[in-house]
Amino acid sequence: MTNETKLWGGRFTEKTAASVEAFTASIHYDSRLYKQDIAGSRAHAKMLVAQGLITAEEGDQIHNGLAEIEQEIEQGVFDFKPELEDIHMNIEKALVDKIGPPGARLHTARSRNDQINLDLRMYLREETGRLIALLDDVRTSFVLLARKYLGAVMPGYTHLQRAQPVLVSHHMLAYFEMFGRDQERLSDCLKRINILPLGAAALAGTGLPIDREYVAKELDFPKVTANSMDTVADRDFALEFVSHCTLIQLHLSRLSEELVIWSTDEFKFVELADGFCTGSSIMPQKKIRIFLSLFAVQAAGW
Amino acid sequence: MTNETKLWGGRFTEKTAASVEAFTASIHYDSRLYKQDIAGSRAHAKMLVAQGLITAEEGDQIHNGLAEIEQEIEQGVFDFKPELEDIHMNIEKALVDKIGPPGARLHTARSRNDQINLDLRMYLREETGRLIALLDDVRTSFVLLARKYLGAVMPGYTHLQRAQPVLVSHHMLAYFEMFGRDQERLSDCLKRINILPLGAAALAGTGLPIDREYVAKELDFPKVTANSMDTVADRDFALEFVSHCTLIQLHLSRLSEELVIWSTDEFKFVELADGFCTGSSIMPQKKIRIFLSLFAVQAAGW
Amino acid sequence: MTNETKLWGGRFTEKTAASVEAFTASIHYDSRLYKQDIAGSRAHAKMLVAQGLITAEEGDQIHNGLAEIEQEIEQGVFDFKPELEDIHMNIEKALVDKIGPPGARLHTARSRNDQINLDLRMYLREETGRLIALLDDVRTSFVLLARKYLGAVMPGYTHLQRAQPVLVSHHMLAYFEMFGRDQERLSDCLKRINILPLGAAALAGTGLPIDREYVAKELDFPKVTANSMDTVADRDFALEFVSHCTLIQLHLSRLSEELVIWSTDEFKFVELADGFCTGSSIMPQKKIRIFLSLFAVQAAGW
Amino acid sequence: MTNETKLWGGRFTEKTAASVEAFTASIHYDSRLYKQDIAGSRAHAKMLVAQGLITAEEGDQIHNGLAEIEQEIEQGVFDFKPELEDIHMNIEKALVDKIGPPGARLHTARSRNDQINLDLRMYLREETGRLIALLDDVRTSFVLLARKYLGAVMPGYTHLQRAQPVLVSHHMLAYFEMFGRDQERLSDCLKRINILPLGAAALAGTGLPIDREYVAKELDFPKVTANSMDTVADRDFALEFVSHCTLIQLHLSRLSEELVIWSTDEFKFVELADGFCTGSSIMPQKKIRIFLSLFAVQAAGW
Repeated sequence: MTNETKLWGGRFTEKTAASVEAFTASIHYDSRLYKQDIAGSRAHAKMLVAQGLITAEEGDQIHNGLAEIEQEIEQGVFDFKPELEDIHMNIEKALVDKIGPPGARLHTARSRNDQINLDLRMYLREETGRLIALLDDVRTSFVLLARKYLGAVMPGYTHLQRAQPVLVSHHMLAYFEMFGRDQERLSDCLKRINILPLGAAALAGTGLPIDREYVAKELDFPKVTANSMDTVADRDFALEFVSHCTLIQLHLSRLSEELVIWSTDEFKFVELADGFCTGSSIMPQKKIRIFLSLFAVQAAGW
Repeated sequence: MTNETKLWGGRFTEKTAASVEAFTASIHYDSRLYKQDIAGSRAHAKMLVAQGLITAEEGDQIHNGLAEIEQEIEQGVFDFKPELEDIHMNIEKALVDKIGPPGARLHTARSRNDQINLDLRMYLREETGRLIALLDDVRTSFVLLARKYLGAVMPGYTHLQRAQPVLVSHHMLAYFEMFGRDQERLSDCLKRINILPLGAAALAGTGLPIDREYVAKELDFPKVTANSMDTVADRDFALEFVSHCTLIQLHLSRLSEELVIWSTDEFKFVELADGFCTGSSIMPQKKIRIFLSLFAVQAAGW
Repeated sequence: MTNETKLWGGRFTEKTAASVEAFTASIHYDSRLYKQDIAGSRAHAKMLVAQGLITAEEGDQIHNGLAEIEQEIEQGVFDFKPELEDIHMNIEKALVDKIGPPGARLHTARSRNDQINLDLRMYLREETGRLIALLDDVRTSFVLLARKYLGAVMPGYTHLQRAQPVLVSHHMLAYFEMFGRDQERLSDCLKRINILPLGAAALAGTGLPIDREYVAKELDFPKVTANSMDTVADRDFALEFVSHCTLIQLHLSRLSEELVIWSTDEFKFVELADGFCTGSSIMPQKKIRIFLSLFAVQAAGW
Repeated sequence: MTNETKLWGGRFTEKTAASVEAFTASIHYDSRLYKQDIAGSRAHAKMLVAQGLITAEEGDQIHNGLAEIEQEIEQGVFDFKPELEDIHMNIEKALVDKIGPPGARLHTARSRNDQINLDLRMYLREETGRLIALLDDVRTSFVLLARKYLGAVMPGYTHLQRAQPVLVSHHMLAYFEMFGRDQERLSDCLKRINILPLGAAALAGTGLPIDREYVAKELDFPKVTANSMDTVADRDFALEFVSHCTLIQLHLSRLSEELVIWSTDEFKFVELADGFCTGSSIMPQKKIRIFLSLFAVQAAGW
């Protein structure tokens, strides 16, 4: 313990090691990326073999080791260790423990910097697809509602004051339009997510004769990123994804607010089905929150 | 003065009228939409004539009146009145003052609700085009810089610690990529901005025989909106535009921070040209802020 | 024009000078600080005389010059120049133009860094006082309303579903409590705003024999700041002020939402007085927005 | 399953029950409030006995039951059930299971609405105290550093350009001031946190003869809230707490950025001690992040 740390420390000093580990570890949230991390490693290993950077035998050992690890994680028996920081180190260490030196060779021509970028892109690519499909269901529901209430009239409001009569179906189809634009935005974003970052390494690429197009094909990426410094240091695709999700939530919030108001005793426009209610007989209004939860919960993949 | 307002008022009561006007007026910021508002009105009037909803003579009077108003605004002699609230009412009132009853007929089959939506879309359409063109210039500059310093090497940093040597050109071209994605995002957004909202009226459309496709063609919109309730009550296209601008700013901020650090005495990687500096001999670091202002100021159209 | 700026410039180059001025100027928004700036300069000059740093005659010239400038600004005849950047330089330049060299001596032992800090603190100190007084009026109004409707019963809602009957007065007094806490927060913040920063100079203080306590007394500050580097580089007091304003707005928003819902045809709990409505016969709901504007407009000092 | 839910459902319908439970449950994050929830229940039960609302024997049973539950939670053997939604229901159900009907009587004159408010206030009261104490340590460290480097000079920067020489100690003590204001803000906030909400019930209070002052004294609250509708529906004290934490983070971020810059090869002002570094020999810069983690990790109570 140096003088300097003591000066700074005060009550901190004793627990330093544990604090440091707790602070730098990300495994408690990035463990959910295990599937993407393993799939990425499989493709990378296959390319390393194809390029002669590791032997075919080493490649087989890596594949078998990763398969075992994936199974252990899915069976809930894998021991995630915070001191190994993140999902990459946890899997790599387990691989080396299983198959020895060839496990370490998997990291050839790769860095955690491009690896986490790959995992995140694969994860968001899947989530984007799932969200678009969920929005399909939501939009279909509005079409069915519009059809069911064909011809029915309701008040149209501005500033919550009755303004002009409108068709219920017209109101429902407004949401069809909103969620349609949300789908378009996600599709547009997908073009920027769906680009292979592997090969950027730490920030300067690698001098080894890798084949990025090979890996891209294996992992179904239509393009590879063009600049390694840009690749490892920008997450604009993720920020864009989050912005678009905010707009989806804004549309869901508008819908929720309408359901809240429409199901008051004073408006009495809708009655929510029991299947979407909790058992509480005191607070029937909870129906609304649960009704909407269908989408939110499934979208979050919980 | 009712009893109720007195109860509420306290020190407020005397200035009520002025406060109300000040609070509801938007003319001090939406006056910048005058061009779009007038262009929209011209197209609308032309359609009203074509559909026989107003006479050709009325149409001519409207066009001439609007031309005069536009000229007055551009010459800085138009008298914007806060008590007329917004740009739409200011122009319409001036038109009626100039040409009498036909001026009022311009509002046939239209509401301020779809009118402001149109103005905003036309404004953002132009700004989006301008931003994309400005980003073209910025990207070209990075290509020229990359070419100029071909072969030059500089330290590549992670966490501001020297990690690996990189080419200056490689670093410059990282920005070429970033601003390229920003352009793509704006182009994608443009698809959702560039849709004609006129015809939605207040929220329920109009029973009059208008021709929306005609107006769309006049104003160069490839599509018309599909649902009037969605049209008047959603500004997601504007939120999307703003989100994309945030990412541009984030990239500019990254560039700025690099220039700030690179131009310190300790790093001494760059020296900014005098043309981008203020006269202050005390604070040479101001160069940096001004250097970047080139983009920011022009982008904001000030 | 150097080679480098040309490379960067593209379409920018020609308008450089104007862009730079437009970007660095703050006069279009900090001109509202003229009163505080002049009051601060008066006190500073008085101290410089007391400490023998300028002569009594110079002090008088400065005071007379500043008085003239203040009058010109208030009469709307002062010529604010963007090329002089900010309120400090605009006033100082005008002073030198009026009284010559003594005007420049006003800047002795002072920097724009501590000067703007002073102006901002004086401005926020006044705004805080005004807000607290306005909230007094608002709270009194709720007490009067509670008294007026003593004994009246209304539904209490949870999730906008009728839950239990409550007294109208009880509901009104909930706002009395909320805005009371908002006042407390502002008072607490005032302790951190109300500290004299002058004397910190650019960042390292000054070697001249200034008397900070003298200036503090002149300007009615109970304390002086303790550390010059902290003083010039922190605006946490302003952020705190803004946070507290956000909570006030949140409470006003809750009130507004209740008025919006209560004044619907379906709820019909309140009818807003005509004095708070615009002339529009089509959209009576506008009453609500204007009703609330009373507070917002006055609070913003427009 | 009604017709309506089918229309809405699409792929959702089958998993409804689980989604609903997952969405409404908060136990995965509010379980950390168990200590406060139990302490609050103890005081509430004691008051119920004192007021004759439950018998002394029932009171004893409740205390013993709660003691057992607390022990189980602390030993990690308590079975938290998401279907019981939150910490209140989980504990109450366990209590009824243990002691039967008297367990249910604990909910007399209380609602989850005022109960969660109490838990949150007790939790924030403790965290506020802890943060103030941690900031004491941090401030002391800066004083020790200032003393250690008495007389040492370093460059003072504006815009990261060398401006004037300053004392290292002076720079350190700037942080002493910043974190001191952060402490003041937390102390001020504590006055608004430290108020007993119990007795507000769902929103309208209770007709039962409770003694709020008794409970306040038991739980060491100097005041009780004044209005039940305000009490259950406002969390401004928590928002205020979060705002103040944001300012602490801002000050820590400023410190971090300085350490990042100062520990570059180019600046070389500081060398971080090994005790605050990870084992990575490739990225020594990680020292910085860990250095700061001391505060962040402990403050978050991980």
